[in-house]
Amino acid sequence: MKMAIFLALVHHPVLDRSGRVVTTALTNVDVHDLARSGRTFGVSRSYVVTPVALQQRLVHEMVGHWQQGAGSAHLRRAEAMQRVSAMPSLDAVRTDITQRTGRAPVIAVTAARWQPEGMKPSMQQPESFALWRQRIATAGDDAQPLLLVFGTGWGLAPEVLLQADVRLPPVRRDPHLLDAEAGDGPYNHLSVRAAAAIILDRLLGDRDAP
Amino acid sequence: MKMAIFLALVHHPVLDRSGRVVTTALTNVDVHDLARSGRTFGVSRSYVVTPVALQQRLVHEMVGHWQQGAGSAHLRRAEAMQRVSAMPSLDAVRTDITQRTGRAPVIAVTAARWQPEGMKPSMQQPESFALWRQRIATAGDDAQPLLLVFGTGWGLAPEVLLQADVRLPPVRRDPHLLDAEAGDGPYNHLSVRAAAAIILDRLLGDRDAP
Repeated sequence: MKMAIFLALVHHPVLDRSGRVVTTALTNVDVHDLARSGRTFGVSRSYVVTPVALQQRLVHEMVGHWQQGAGSAHLRRAEAMQRVSAMPSLDAVRTDITQRTGRAPVIAVTAARWQPEGMKPSMQQPESFALWRQRIATAGDDAQPLLLVFGTGWGLAPEVLLQADVRLPPVRRDPHLLDAEAGDGPYNHLSVRAAAAIILDRLLGDRDAP
Repeated sequence: MKMAIFLALVHHPVLDRSGRVVTTALTNVDVHDLARSGRTFGVSRSYVVTPVALQQRLVHEMVGHWQQGAGSAHLRRAEAMQRVSAMPSLDAVRTDITQRTGRAPVIAVTAARWQPEGMKPSMQQPESFALWRQRIATAGDDAQPLLLVFGTGWGLAPEVLLQADVRLPPVRRDPHLLDAEAGDGPYNHLSVRAAAAIILDRLLGDRDAP
């Protein structure tokens, strides 16, 4: 191993359609997909971030269902779910990772439409997936862990971007492979489930295997 | 354009956990994710395959909701959903694609655990994503369309594999990037939503963009 990879799915602070900072509700299928994709690609732990105590408890109950409850006969889902935790904030996630690994994580977000003033200089330009794949491949045992942060709703609020260290490029199709059809503009409206899966594959997948 | 790409999400015939051929129920979030991922990567049309008339009507209603109903103010979702159709069978999908494009599609499935006797010789070995990416990039105007078929439940039934022309490799993590943790075997239990998104990205994504 070398670099440990973590995921966080943030329900607050995120934006709604009109750009206001809100708290979104937990979506069961997001938690399952995060667990399954994380487990497939070797992610150390996935965090569901919500300040709402009732929703944190819901995550605990979902995880418990697969560990001890009716779902525990389903070993693969249980295996995936045991690496999921609820956390009240991104700060709490950072603290947990620091305690687990001994180092504070590098916080990476995917390119946002919002670029608030005061972001770290390292956030001005996206860093390519190829660069990070290389960093993961060559990381030593003392490598800083990498925390990939995804936002629900209409994306992460500016205050999360101010905490982030690295911006990854947006996921798009290759414009050279298929021509755009008449009237089509660029379109990227992937679900957070799909975007997270693709980003894990871009960083960690065996995409060039025969 | 050159090669037209189509998706099919099959609810029958698929396998259940014990290997029996069953019909699975429609999952709303699958339809939305298929529409959104398909639209993001330039897929011409996505088909929801189910022989159950009531479930076909449910798909029509979902599409209608985003076209004329309460959802129509949400332009991007409407744009994605207008490229979704329900079909009773994979044969009907094949006929529809042939009528739309003038050519029968190449039918591609992802590597299955099941390899029934009587599969086409081209199905014996998986063909790499790199090969298909290259084929898409160099396709002429008369290229055969490509139909990517995904199964719900525990995967496509043997009779679908017998109709298929091409097998794509399973999506896995690169074993050289992160060491497996003690006790871990290979694990791939992606949701069909995540698997479809990753496969579209492997074939059509701008993964090496700066």
